[in-house]
Amino acid sequence: MPEPYKVRDPNSIGVAFLGVGRMGQTHIQNLAGIGNVRVIVVADEDPAAAERGRAIARADRATTDAHDAITDGAVDAVVISTPTSTHAALIEAALRAGKAVWTEKPIALDLVETNRLVELWRATGLPVQLGFMRRFDPGYVRAKELIVAGELGRIEQFRAYSRDTYPPSADFIKHSGGSFLDMSVHDFDLARFLVGEVDEVSSWGNVLIDQRFGDGDDIDTAVTMLRFQNGALGVVEMSRRSAWGYDIRTEVAGATGKVVVEAPHKTALTFSRRFGFEGDHFESFPDRFEAGYRLELEAFFETLAVGGTPDPGPDEALETLRLAIAARRSWSEGRPIAVAEVTPHNPA
Amino acid sequence: MPEPYKVRDPNSIGVAFLGVGRMGQTHIQNLAGIGNVRVIVVADEDPAAAERGRAIARADRATTDAHDAITDGAVDAVVISTPTSTHAALIEAALRAGKAVWTEKPIALDLVETNRLVELWRATGLPVQLGFMRRFDPGYVRAKELIVAGELGRIEQFRAYSRDTYPPSADFIKHSGGSFLDMSVHDFDLARFLVGEVDEVSSWGNVLIDQRFGDGDDIDTAVTMLRFQNGALGVVEMSRRSAWGYDIRTEVAGATGKVVVEAPHKTALTFSRRFGFEGDHFESFPDRFEAGYRLELEAFFETLAVGGTPDPGPDEALETLRLAIAARRSWSEGRPIAVAEVTPHNPA
Amino acid sequence: MPEPYKVRDPNSIGVAFLGVGRMGQTHIQNLAGIGNVRVIVVADEDPAAAERGRAIARADRATTDAHDAITDGAVDAVVISTPTSTHAALIEAALRAGKAVWTEKPIALDLVETNRLVELWRATGLPVQLGFMRRFDPGYVRAKELIVAGELGRIEQFRAYSRDTYPPSADFIKHSGGSFLDMSVHDFDLARFLVGEVDEVSSWGNVLIDQRFGDGDDIDTAVTMLRFQNGALGVVEMSRRSAWGYDIRTEVAGATGKVVVEAPHKTALTFSRRFGFEGDHFESFPDRFEAGYRLELEAFFETLAVGGTPDPGPDEALETLRLAIAARRSWSEGRPIAVAEVTPHNPA
Amino acid sequence: MPEPYKVRDPNSIGVAFLGVGRMGQTHIQNLAGIGNVRVIVVADEDPAAAERGRAIARADRATTDAHDAITDGAVDAVVISTPTSTHAALIEAALRAGKAVWTEKPIALDLVETNRLVELWRATGLPVQLGFMRRFDPGYVRAKELIVAGELGRIEQFRAYSRDTYPPSADFIKHSGGSFLDMSVHDFDLARFLVGEVDEVSSWGNVLIDQRFGDGDDIDTAVTMLRFQNGALGVVEMSRRSAWGYDIRTEVAGATGKVVVEAPHKTALTFSRRFGFEGDHFESFPDRFEAGYRLELEAFFETLAVGGTPDPGPDEALETLRLAIAARRSWSEGRPIAVAEVTPHNPA
Repeated sequence: MPEPYKVRDPNSIGVAFLGVGRMGQTHIQNLAGIGNVRVIVVADEDPAAAERGRAIARADRATTDAHDAITDGAVDAVVISTPTSTHAALIEAALRAGKAVWTEKPIALDLVETNRLVELWRATGLPVQLGFMRRFDPGYVRAKELIVAGELGRIEQFRAYSRDTYPPSADFIKHSGGSFLDMSVHDFDLARFLVGEVDEVSSWGNVLIDQRFGDGDDIDTAVTMLRFQNGALGVVEMSRRSAWGYDIRTEVAGATGKVVVEAPHKTALTFSRRFGFEGDHFESFPDRFEAGYRLELEAFFETLAVGGTPDPGPDEALETLRLAIAARRSWSEGRPIAVAEVTPHNPA
Repeated sequence: MPEPYKVRDPNSIGVAFLGVGRMGQTHIQNLAGIGNVRVIVVADEDPAAAERGRAIARADRATTDAHDAITDGAVDAVVISTPTSTHAALIEAALRAGKAVWTEKPIALDLVETNRLVELWRATGLPVQLGFMRRFDPGYVRAKELIVAGELGRIEQFRAYSRDTYPPSADFIKHSGGSFLDMSVHDFDLARFLVGEVDEVSSWGNVLIDQRFGDGDDIDTAVTMLRFQNGALGVVEMSRRSAWGYDIRTEVAGATGKVVVEAPHKTALTFSRRFGFEGDHFESFPDRFEAGYRLELEAFFETLAVGGTPDPGPDEALETLRLAIAARRSWSEGRPIAVAEVTPHNPA
Repeated sequence: MPEPYKVRDPNSIGVAFLGVGRMGQTHIQNLAGIGNVRVIVVADEDPAAAERGRAIARADRATTDAHDAITDGAVDAVVISTPTSTHAALIEAALRAGKAVWTEKPIALDLVETNRLVELWRATGLPVQLGFMRRFDPGYVRAKELIVAGELGRIEQFRAYSRDTYPPSADFIKHSGGSFLDMSVHDFDLARFLVGEVDEVSSWGNVLIDQRFGDGDDIDTAVTMLRFQNGALGVVEMSRRSAWGYDIRTEVAGATGKVVVEAPHKTALTFSRRFGFEGDHFESFPDRFEAGYRLELEAFFETLAVGGTPDPGPDEALETLRLAIAARRSWSEGRPIAVAEVTPHNPA
Repeated sequence: MPEPYKVRDPNSIGVAFLGVGRMGQTHIQNLAGIGNVRVIVVADEDPAAAERGRAIARADRATTDAHDAITDGAVDAVVISTPTSTHAALIEAALRAGKAVWTEKPIALDLVETNRLVELWRATGLPVQLGFMRRFDPGYVRAKELIVAGELGRIEQFRAYSRDTYPPSADFIKHSGGSFLDMSVHDFDLARFLVGEVDEVSSWGNVLIDQRFGDGDDIDTAVTMLRFQNGALGVVEMSRRSAWGYDIRTEVAGATGKVVVEAPHKTALTFSRRFGFEGDHFESFPDRFEAGYRLELEAFFETLAVGGTPDPGPDEALETLRLAIAARRSWSEGRPIAVAEVTPHNPA
């Protein structure tokens, strides 16, 4: 058993920030506003991006070498916002360097690799938190509280859908792990977060929006039924394009109450004319989950400051990945799949 | 080919009203407010109920004999609001007497019997309309208009759920045809009305609310995936009890827009206190679909007055029944079912 | 003291219906759907309108002579839906004939005449109800219940506005008593219904929409401050034209809670496209207060059936008229007006 | 005419931050997240507060001497978040030191003093922006855009109300300038921002909530009518306590459309149970205007970076103050007040 992890100064936690892409800029701006964080070093393969991040966070230095940043002696924690394919290696490097880790999801698109990292994480006992930002959105937080408090009674139904505003690029599609792993994974994570573990799934998918998905052996429209261990039934729907903006709705219904999390209004404005009224939808995840992106990082550093265990950790990410893989497998094999079938020995 | 049906006086259509139960009272009150209807006779096995109905409608007479009412010479049209098990025989009697028919759904719970009535209806050419009241709710009417006008583009997703406030009695459960035929049938009808025909369904169900459903070889909670002929994917969810009131939501999403039909507010009131706000849900179908129940009858008599063909007719009811039977069969056999498999030769 | 009024048959109250204009048709259709009403005779100066009303209500006969209808021996109650200028004379005739009366508001636009009728009503002890339909809208009913139950604590603020969709005709404007009496009177009545009596008002008005209002010595846009006897402060706003449909909102705020009555959605449909959502407003009072128009008549006949005193009666109408006149006088004299100043001796 | 003001490095504007109280902490955290800001020095009379602010902003140093901070050679702009009574002196010092200024409203509670500062600001030509954060809330921004684009047609009505959740302390009341200047000033500013200048006001007020307001020669509940120069009529309501949370609503109605800015939902969650639904209101201005507080500072530094003139400037603050004083005078003198009456020669 290693020495328990401890930050040197809970009021000024040293951070190495990796990856100043689109979401990276959001994350580093959020970091800059967190009182007990001090960004030591910002890394990006592109030196201009690294310097841009450094300036935002008033960090001591910028570098193009992620490993140099990770091993910096002043660094307590590593924040990873690089492309998905690099997550596992960077998490591993950080763990081997004894650092705490906050990382964008997923650990990896591959179950074997994810499992390996989870075991490494267990061995090190280091604090690691995954970027499931919806769990930190105030609406979902309140939903969880009500469920835990028993206000809904026994949970009987779960339903969620996600529609992304803009379909991704053809190149992204190819390396995304498919729509079940790339998009619905957020809803599968909410299913587990809000209701519990799932026994079995059954998925149907189709290519209705963009043939590039078909070309990439993927689908752009899908529906998945879920049978939870507690007997509840659920459904998760997905679409890769929405002409009306980001469209996310989650509902949990029980014996005595139900919660719906949906934010149709982007602003407080309603415009009325010609016998009707109008309002604005959110455009995409950065505006819809602005608070969630900020709060997940605040929670991580608050947890480090008090010496707790960050949540959701790698084990949560692993179970959510297994569920997403089960859904993908159900679609590709055309039959219901028990989540128990998805193991490191039968990972795809 | 018989003589085309024609009412004697489009401003005063003679009606025989059958069945003054709970919904019957609503229907006869609605009839009383329709300008071009004159209720001639009201029939109910219970003479007090028949007389009650007669008084509401200022009808000429009351009777306990439905066939006496149907064959009354002053009667142009028969309105049937009796128990489900009697529908088919009464529709048949009315058709054989040359009368137009408005009847509560379903024609029958049995596909063979339904098919037989549809063929009889085709042979007579008489106007018959089924009581799918949701199709006349102003929200659904507007949804249909927008879809037909192409405002949503190609339809890609359909989702609907229905939760009844109160579970039915054990006796009702036994003779209801099961929850797929008794409850989800409304959502299956909307699926066909708003999107089009369905190729295949896959259903899961469970008993979570009340063991009486299990005892009746039925389920009280269900989810069904739908694959439409046009490629769209859909889902229909069902629950037989809702602690928060009648809970109906329908959504159709296409390439350029989506419509949601949901009426969370029962009244125009919002009450704010203790950092929150509250409002009332509808209690059940009579209050939620008050307008639909009135408008479906108005539409029927308007159609009779101008000599048109009422919609939805028995053919629509037959196709919706086949879809509901497919869902029930999928649940009971534990496999996806093509709707084409459900025929009078393979009806259950 | 006269013999107490009593209907002959509470299950079949004989009615004379007067005035089959636009709202008259709505009222008579509603009457036709009330179980314990039997319309005996329908009167309108226009014989075709009278006959149209007779057919809707399946009444025994039609007439062009209102007094003939009122004095019909089978008539227990008179329902008045004629032009405003005829109300007082018809109410008087009905009272002198010993009949109960339901009448569209107002009794008269003139305070002296209204007061005379109130005194006549008091002398006869007959049941009379005025057509303030908002008091029967389920949202306002619930608001009143919450206030009476003390859920809002001490009432501190009242605010209301009404915007009519279509400005009235020039001829109507001239004989309407002005916008304060014709339109804001509904909000003044709600102020009294929900909060209590008003001590003082101060009004400003302007002609912004249509010069015909100015030509008619009236305004089309107004705002009035109210000082209630209990210390609460209020405001009533008015506009005679709304491009976006009927626009009515009422709010009562107290020490522990507030209620808002507003019905922005006409149907249960929301349409989403191009990063936004849309819904329909109500068009005008007939669709917004469809339930209120029906329920006010049901309540009247229910009250007659059980031998109670209808509410709101002529005394309520008188007090509301005084408040509206005070507001009009404040606008025309350019100073705050105490409601106590408005008396039959100083009526304009 | 002085040399035009110019920041040395638009990508790194040096800032002196004054006043790390409750709102000060919000402001400095927002500053820390703005890319082109570098906080040089943080000042607060309380050294611990100054140091706390320094740590949040990673500033070079902390001080208890505001003037030392203002005159720091690396400082381009001063951000003032100190108590109201100190604003004028600090603004003056900053202007005399040639610095740009962002300051919490108001300049002063006194018209003579405010006017003096406005003249000094005009003489220096330095960029100064006042903290009317509502003007930067995305809902109000969109409302302004629609109005400017002519989508509402000629503006005819304005209505606004504000209710603060918690009444202030007795000490605060005494030095607040009264509720018209301290609270309604935000709505008066919106009236000018969205509709235009006001000719005349008439106010009523009362003490209903807390006798401390009466003891402080103030009121806690008020209503004000506004007559705009363009003929539109308006109303502003105020309450110093709200049991149901922060309650702000603003409405502008014109010939062709209206806008409402109101944010009833704090989170995306709705909880349904017992035939109703519930949601959360915002608690107070920090959560309701979280975005506005951030965006007003971002806009200020963006304006400095490109060399523009910040808006709203001191002239706007002066006009809004005159309107608020007119309302207060109307209440205290019991008569309508023309805004033109409120001048430095007749300031109270």
